[in-house]
Amino acid sequence: MKQALVEAQKAYDANEVPVGAVIVTNNTIIARAHNLTERLHDVTAHAEMQAITAAANFLNGKYLNDCTLYVTLEPCVMCMGAIYWAQLSGIVFGAEDPKRGFQQAQLIPHPKAKVFGGVMAEESKMILQDFFRKKRA
Amino acid sequence: MKQALVEAQKAYDANEVPVGAVIVTNNTIIARAHNLTERLHDVTAHAEMQAITAAANFLNGKYLNDCTLYVTLEPCVMCMGAIYWAQLSGIVFGAEDPKRGFQQAQLIPHPKAKVFGGVMAEESKMILQDFFRKKRA
Repeated sequence: MKQALVEAQKAYDANEVPVGAVIVTNNTIIARAHNLTERLHDVTAHAEMQAITAAANFLNGKYLNDCTLYVTLEPCVMCMGAIYWAQLSGIVFGAEDPKRGFQQAQLIPHPKAKVFGGVMAEESKMILQDFFRKKRA
Repeated sequence: MKQALVEAQKAYDANEVPVGAVIVTNNTIIARAHNLTERLHDVTAHAEMQAITAAANFLNGKYLNDCTLYVTLEPCVMCMGAIYWAQLSGIVFGAEDPKRGFQQAQLIPHPKAKVFGGVMAEESKMILQDFFRKKRA
């Protein structure tokens, strides 16, 4: 999750909503990404989506069965959909997203996927709060 | 929807699950796409996702407020999430997807988005059935 936060900081520095993600398999990071919606003018360019695409590219296969995603913010419905399709076996997220998170939409993750929330939640939340505070200033 | 079916046929010919999509604004098609999950080894490469990215690229902006998506199959959760973020004002789909469609997941579309299903549903379904029949043969 520390590495996901490093990615979130990169997003922050690039004036993107600071969310970062990494994908790990066998204790090795195989993909790292941060939100790029502004740079790419693309609402689908969330950190998780970029990370899934990068990990699949790295593994040369669509499915990420033995992989765990670490992401600083609770995934949205779109990203949980992608996580479902990619068959990720683990999802660890930081801060909750009570407005746009998958939990609020009552979306049920894949039964085989293990989901943990609240890991380094405070740090994950603080960088977002700081970003939006500066935006509004 | 006829043009979305043309896209689905392209997917079929490329040995991809035959789903096609177009995005229309002011009676003009600004994006056309078909499923590319096999070629790109990427579960996120659904027709709708490609079309949203292409339309945003065409308009040079993230949001597709005055656009309607025509897609041959009921969007999945991931794609409905992307449709939500893109603020598409209309979604017209062909065949229902009782297993993986957003309706089965009880996902509620954006309240401002108008959603119509069942348009050219038979043609949309037939190309899919034909594809999977051949796959199994």
